[in-house]
Amino acid sequence: MGTDLHWLSIAEAAPLIERRELSPVDLVDACLERVEALDGRLNAFITLLADEARAAARGAADEIANGAYRGPLHGIPVGIKDIFAVAGAPMTAGSLIFRDVVSEEDSAVTGRLREAGAVILGTLNLHEIALGATGVNPHTGSARNPWNTGRITGGSSSGAAAAVAAGLCFAAMGTDTGCSVRIPAALCGVAGIKPTFGRVSRRGLLPLSWSLDHAGPLTRTTEDAAIVLQAIAGHDAGDPASSRIDVPDYSAALGDGVRGLRVGVPDRYFGDGLDTDVEAAFREAVRQIESLGAELIEFSPPHTDEMPGAIAAIMLPEAFAFHQKAMRERPDDIGEDVRYRLELGAAYPAVEYIQALRFREMVVEVWRKDVFGEIDLVATATSMIAARPIEVSDLSTTFSLIHNANPFNLLGTPAISVPCGFTGDGLPIGLQLVGRWFDEATVLRGAQAYETATDWHSRRPPL
Amino acid sequence: MGTDLHWLSIAEAAPLIERRELSPVDLVDACLERVEALDGRLNAFITLLADEARAAARGAADEIANGAYRGPLHGIPVGIKDIFAVAGAPMTAGSLIFRDVVSEEDSAVTGRLREAGAVILGTLNLHEIALGATGVNPHTGSARNPWNTGRITGGSSSGAAAAVAAGLCFAAMGTDTGCSVRIPAALCGVAGIKPTFGRVSRRGLLPLSWSLDHAGPLTRTTEDAAIVLQAIAGHDAGDPASSRIDVPDYSAALGDGVRGLRVGVPDRYFGDGLDTDVEAAFREAVRQIESLGAELIEFSPPHTDEMPGAIAAIMLPEAFAFHQKAMRERPDDIGEDVRYRLELGAAYPAVEYIQALRFREMVVEVWRKDVFGEIDLVATATSMIAARPIEVSDLSTTFSLIHNANPFNLLGTPAISVPCGFTGDGLPIGLQLVGRWFDEATVLRGAQAYETATDWHSRRPPL
Repeated sequence: MGTDLHWLSIAEAAPLIERRELSPVDLVDACLERVEALDGRLNAFITLLADEARAAARGAADEIANGAYRGPLHGIPVGIKDIFAVAGAPMTAGSLIFRDVVSEEDSAVTGRLREAGAVILGTLNLHEIALGATGVNPHTGSARNPWNTGRITGGSSSGAAAAVAAGLCFAAMGTDTGCSVRIPAALCGVAGIKPTFGRVSRRGLLPLSWSLDHAGPLTRTTEDAAIVLQAIAGHDAGDPASSRIDVPDYSAALGDGVRGLRVGVPDRYFGDGLDTDVEAAFREAVRQIESLGAELIEFSPPHTDEMPGAIAAIMLPEAFAFHQKAMRERPDDIGEDVRYRLELGAAYPAVEYIQALRFREMVVEVWRKDVFGEIDLVATATSMIAARPIEVSDLSTTFSLIHNANPFNLLGTPAISVPCGFTGDGLPIGLQLVGRWFDEATVLRGAQAYETATDWHSRRPPL
Repeated sequence: MGTDLHWLSIAEAAPLIERRELSPVDLVDACLERVEALDGRLNAFITLLADEARAAARGAADEIANGAYRGPLHGIPVGIKDIFAVAGAPMTAGSLIFRDVVSEEDSAVTGRLREAGAVILGTLNLHEIALGATGVNPHTGSARNPWNTGRITGGSSSGAAAAVAAGLCFAAMGTDTGCSVRIPAALCGVAGIKPTFGRVSRRGLLPLSWSLDHAGPLTRTTEDAAIVLQAIAGHDAGDPASSRIDVPDYSAALGDGVRGLRVGVPDRYFGDGLDTDVEAAFREAVRQIESLGAELIEFSPPHTDEMPGAIAAIMLPEAFAFHQKAMRERPDDIGEDVRYRLELGAAYPAVEYIQALRFREMVVEVWRKDVFGEIDLVATATSMIAARPIEVSDLSTTFSLIHNANPFNLLGTPAISVPCGFTGDGLPIGLQLVGRWFDEATVLRGAQAYETATDWHSRRPPL
């Protein structure tokens, strides 16, 4: 197998592990070597759990040797955004405030990954408290884009995207409150799915905005996203928003192609202001999807102009409420951009927050009927722009990053980003596909059909 | 049967109806005569649906004659607080703003009462938009207390309490966001139960504060409360807070007495500042409950001092959000006290609202463990005071009315008020019994045991 073990997909590695042709110990060593070689440049990890990971890999190898193979995540090294509790490890949330907090218990997602046999390699860098889309972090240092280490990864799941894109781990858990799985996935050229609100438990995850927080995986292929999602989806009484709707077999939907699917292409908002290269790649992706047999339907997305204001009116006050004590007692330990956003949150009147929640209920019903009554998948560019240089990434960059991803946090629909091309200077571009509530299967099916017909996802960064 | 039909309890009338010894038509006529004779003084009804009620009673009589007896509400005249939709009738909410709104569909509760065979007699007076505890209403005129028509009924379900206490109907639906079923029940000498949050659907009910709104019946006996609750309890997808927990047979719990029940008597807060007569009646009621075999446990109620602030921080901004348009466009059509409360609601920062919701989650867990781990029922006086004269009832009166009832809206626990005595000048006093979440059965059992051993509930007002 040799030096390229780290580029296997989970779907490729799993049968080798099951047949004992590949040892989880070798896999974890390959990842740790890769981290050793590259993470000084990428800054993807916050806490590397090398010893624990090696021990877990040996445990997995023993289990499999004893015939107790658990499934496709057994022995697979994964990283966890440093905002999910990992028992015994610090959970910093990329913040000075939480730097010394060691988790006593696993988060729901960490626990389910372990049950599936995954090996936790360490915790991953992020935008401070997940409140930002660039990944620029004054405390931990910014994670760097594997395609150009002078560029941002996007955020907030910055380290997760960098680590998966650079082959430091096979999958990484991210969170997505306004874009934070999909934007770094797009900017780093990997797959990232935000499942339906309520599909994956947030227990043991530091809240940013509990009305909008979603947890989801970043992987190198859609098939791998389906594998990880299968392990982490499902009801958990520890998250009040967790749904009891049954979890289907996601892998069963893969390979069905897009023939017969009605793919909605918005006539405005999501296409307004895209960078030229992004626009061209998106248009080409849509043409490709049509050529694969999907029916394209142009539509006017309802209420999109009011959505960013509603999201801010929910996210910022909730974030401020959670971090109010830190803002009062340790404001200087909070980064400037995050402090600014939290101060905005402090200033909202209750009525604006409440009206935003009521607006969400209304707009969900409108989209359910007027959009998803006709359309199976909505296609947009994930981000309006590719990765900008770290030193010029600011609020205007943030606006262009989150614009197209953000509405689907308010709506709570599942949404995936998969690679769909490169800019002239070699930076990845993402295609976003959005489906009906709890219909991750169709989202994965569409993304995988596109992926199968293209090779963007199999390009590797020049590290 | 003659002239006293209107004083039958539902439990007394039902077997007569089932055996066709009593016609629903006679019952409705008895109520309509009583309304005709007394409602000029009581002002309990807003819209009397006399023709519709007579037609429904004839329909019920025909069904029963054909052997299709539906159960103990079949043919029973009930009133509905004018804040639940009744198809074809106006729903004024006691407000000029909604005066001309005719409901197209029944509320969930109205519909379930009709399915159970109840006859809707009309809609009942209330504090304007249910935002007040006195029942003083500048638009509809205040409902008047049957025990002394110069006194308030309490509110907001003012007409419901007056109508049931005066024998204008057999049961009435009320709502309770901060006390609004239990306070008028206490002040008018009838039973009123606020079921667990999520037990009874609020679909089709004009919201006051959806995080705190409860719907519940007022009746002349606990047994009748169990009958009505049985009909209206249970899951409804039309109310997002509606619970899927099974509804037990409430009548099965009645008659079991209080022997072996641990009844908690708070050592402070709920006893602070009771009027002398109220204090004496409450102490005597507690002694009586002990003499019936319950174990009394004195306890310190946790976090009660912080509860009123939290309730206000939830209720007032939600109420303002719902009535924001009316406050902007028609402020002069809103009563002074209600406008004042809505203006308070407009001034809350989002963070106070959010922290109040988070406080609720915390305090529910504390009470679940520290109070209801040890105690089956909490006993308090329902109100600190009896009915005050209408002309002096203001904000200070409101404080004394709501103080003891209010915390159980934040907690969401079931709570009943039953008559437990009279003041020196002949005004009813209420005993409040509070149980565990979704344990209405024990609340009803305790109240009925007390009622069986006393005769306060069978006294009739001097009309």
